[in-house]
Amino acid sequence: MKIGILGSGMVGQNLGAALARAGHDIVLGTRTPDDLDRERGRSAKSLRAWLDQAGTHARVATFAEAATHGDVVVNATSGAGALEALRLAGEDSLRGKVVIDTSNPLDFSRGMPPTLSVCNNDSLGERIQRAFPSARVVKTLNTTNTLVMTDPARLAGGEHTMFLCGNDADARRSVANYLNEWFGWSDIIDLGDITNARGMEMVLPLWIRLMGVLGTPMFNFRIVR
Amino acid sequence: MKIGILGSGMVGQNLGAALARAGHDIVLGTRTPDDLDRERGRSAKSLRAWLDQAGTHARVATFAEAATHGDVVVNATSGAGALEALRLAGEDSLRGKVVIDTSNPLDFSRGMPPTLSVCNNDSLGERIQRAFPSARVVKTLNTTNTLVMTDPARLAGGEHTMFLCGNDADARRSVANYLNEWFGWSDIIDLGDITNARGMEMVLPLWIRLMGVLGTPMFNFRIVR
Repeated sequence: MKIGILGSGMVGQNLGAALARAGHDIVLGTRTPDDLDRERGRSAKSLRAWLDQAGTHARVATFAEAATHGDVVVNATSGAGALEALRLAGEDSLRGKVVIDTSNPLDFSRGMPPTLSVCNNDSLGERIQRAFPSARVVKTLNTTNTLVMTDPARLAGGEHTMFLCGNDADARRSVANYLNEWFGWSDIIDLGDITNARGMEMVLPLWIRLMGVLGTPMFNFRIVR
Repeated sequence: MKIGILGSGMVGQNLGAALARAGHDIVLGTRTPDDLDRERGRSAKSLRAWLDQAGTHARVATFAEAATHGDVVVNATSGAGALEALRLAGEDSLRGKVVIDTSNPLDFSRGMPPTLSVCNNDSLGERIQRAFPSARVVKTLNTTNTLVMTDPARLAGGEHTMFLCGNDADARRSVANYLNEWFGWSDIIDLGDITNARGMEMVLPLWIRLMGVLGTPMFNFRIVR
């Protein structure tokens, strides 16, 4: 499958490499595709090292090229950069496509722990859908560490939960299938329309604190019922 | 143990009855202790019916009498009524005591789903602690339905998680012990100081949506790690 990944940080690199190694045709979009040697933020390698890891099904390009390439586009930018990256991708290249939004509106400007730059009566997922009304935005994967995103089985045999939401029911079903086929997610809860991105993003303060208390990002929520 | 419960709705009634039936000495505080026959909100019975259920270790009184009675005080009011109920209880009657805050700052004034009246850079737990600095506030139990609060084993054999936070480490340890001794909670995560009430309260939008999607309030978060 042709997949465009927007964002060259840890999340974009990990998602892109996992999908490329599984045989998908990946273009990783970044603002600076010619700068292959710079390390890309916390815990992220250079794109040259990433290309070595991701293999022959992966290449690096601009946001616009990545979005145009993808039959599905994944927003894996930081929350602060999400809308700008999508603008650089361009609405025409997103039109009618499933856009998987994994980002969180974390605001580190007042130090740690971060607050959310939007919450409670709006969300980043909704802002993205409003800014790109012709895209079929599905929020998911934002409530786990990226290593759990792409390999849920590494934690408790995969016995934990992934949420998703979005306005287009067909897009939600498609993404649920992708999460299962790409990564093996089995307990996927469809929350409904994109306003449910509020709840999905608002778990981040608890998530971040749990990471500190547990001393690891390798955990996830399971909805026991 | 002498326990004062503030609030006569479903949460206060269920907590009070469970503790009274376990032999604790319970005073349930309400604004209207003489009105035993009115039904107390959604899913809550009259206090006359509650007294029949709770048995000889339970009685109904004012907020102030309940708080004075308790060696431990439990705030089981609605979020909107929490600070006023505690003011009616009186700071002197809370001084030095562990105050278990189970409330959520849900704002139903704009319809369903509710938003939070405070979040992100403050929380109801913090507001309560600031308003009653001599009380030892511990936030907990706010992330589950009340029937799960008092009987975690009824769901997946109790294999799910309870969070708590508060500024006083001894009070947090005491409350963790109470949760285990009173109700059988075993997976209790101490998040640290009372600012972590933000994260604990901000999961409510997801919780409320999950209740709708799952068609039941009988679920809980488990932190898989």
